[in-house]
Amino acid sequence: MPNPTAAMLVIGDEILSGRTRDTNTQYLATKLAEMGIDLLEVRVVPDDQLRISEAAVHLSETFDHVFTSGGIGPTHDDITADSIALAFGKSISVRDDALEILKHHCARMGVELNDSRLRMARIPEGASLIENSVSAAPGFSIGNVHVMAGVPKIFEDMAVRVLSGLTGGRPLRSRSVEIFRPEGEIARKLGEIVQAFPDLSIGSYPRRIDGRFAVNVVFRGKDRFTVDSAAKAFLAAFPDAADSD
Amino acid sequence: MPNPTAAMLVIGDEILSGRTRDTNTQYLATKLAEMGIDLLEVRVVPDDQLRISEAAVHLSETFDHVFTSGGIGPTHDDITADSIALAFGKSISVRDDALEILKHHCARMGVELNDSRLRMARIPEGASLIENSVSAAPGFSIGNVHVMAGVPKIFEDMAVRVLSGLTGGRPLRSRSVEIFRPEGEIARKLGEIVQAFPDLSIGSYPRRIDGRFAVNVVFRGKDRFTVDSAAKAFLAAFPDAADSD
Repeated sequence: MPNPTAAMLVIGDEILSGRTRDTNTQYLATKLAEMGIDLLEVRVVPDDQLRISEAAVHLSETFDHVFTSGGIGPTHDDITADSIALAFGKSISVRDDALEILKHHCARMGVELNDSRLRMARIPEGASLIENSVSAAPGFSIGNVHVMAGVPKIFEDMAVRVLSGLTGGRPLRSRSVEIFRPEGEIARKLGEIVQAFPDLSIGSYPRRIDGRFAVNVVFRGKDRFTVDSAAKAFLAAFPDAADSD
Repeated sequence: MPNPTAAMLVIGDEILSGRTRDTNTQYLATKLAEMGIDLLEVRVVPDDQLRISEAAVHLSETFDHVFTSGGIGPTHDDITADSIALAFGKSISVRDDALEILKHHCARMGVELNDSRLRMARIPEGASLIENSVSAAPGFSIGNVHVMAGVPKIFEDMAVRVLSGLTGGRPLRSRSVEIFRPEGEIARKLGEIVQAFPDLSIGSYPRRIDGRFAVNVVFRGKDRFTVDSAAKAFLAAFPDAADSD
């Protein structure tokens, strides 16, 4: 059976302007790989209701799971909940269960539950809440779309909760080897190994280390034995290669 | 006149598996913002010819410029050039101009121009080459799609060359202020400022600094005076706020 598939939808002008580097994608990608859910697409879109809605609908129809980050706080630019409601034709209003979480959080922090904070309790009908231990604003899941915060600590807290409820597949096993040669010298032999191991995804990542050419070759697949066999074939062909992280 | 628009297409299983963090997007985003080209979408897709082609065609039709990173080296997983040729219905073969670059590079490095390296001279018909000062593999531009390397140093070298040939728009001016309060306390007043400055994009980015709530508010727009006016309105409303980077 093929692994479940997933997409990530990053929402935020601050990523597209270069101001902020998105770190949530790599966090999620690593977690998904560990549990055998294949992340097949990432999109970054601006704080624009129509663009968020369109991307959410497309990704929701194309992949088994969609994870979004960003835009669920109390300020004017937090439009993700409304955009997702629009995308799936749901009404949105302050919900009692989300309000309870907010009240509890505000009491604990000794802050006022004002109109702006109340915005964070606006949840599309039919969605289930995603709580977090850091902030007041709950995320939510609606169908296969999981709407989470942009702040990395909160995103990670929510992601762990959501992922614990999903069924994974066969995790990707991987083994990396490194060789200090330019990529052009290993390409032909590596191509033969690729042919011999059609079930594997084999990546070749060149880089420079202290001015020397180096290549990291990564063997990935669902079967540990096959991954090891391919890596061993490479190590046999290139005695100057070695396992790496 | 509105600014030119752009999209980034990141190609690579290694990003989607979490192994590698994409840094090229932030580099490009920053450069584009400086020259007034609005980056409106980023997509990350796997090393899959059909997915690369589909994304390239869609982004090329939707935005003024498309920048791709990854998949133009000598190994089996370098399929970007073929995918882009497929996307735009162009033939692809070893081209004399690219071959010259390769020959020159191999001679300089004292390495053999073997069949694998020859792959890097396969360029779609009608494309113009993007050279770089780091590696042998040229990128290329075909129509509004600029195909560049994934290795950050090479990507950056190529991006500078491509961008120098493009016409920019009005760069986005921005000014940031920081305030040590939770976001929910500034949201209402900030919302009023947003209403008062409809030409600006104003972002509110909460974070925690040493356990304290803080918010970075970023005022962005094409007119420096308007940006400053909005920031001043915020600083007047919140005397405990201050300019930040």
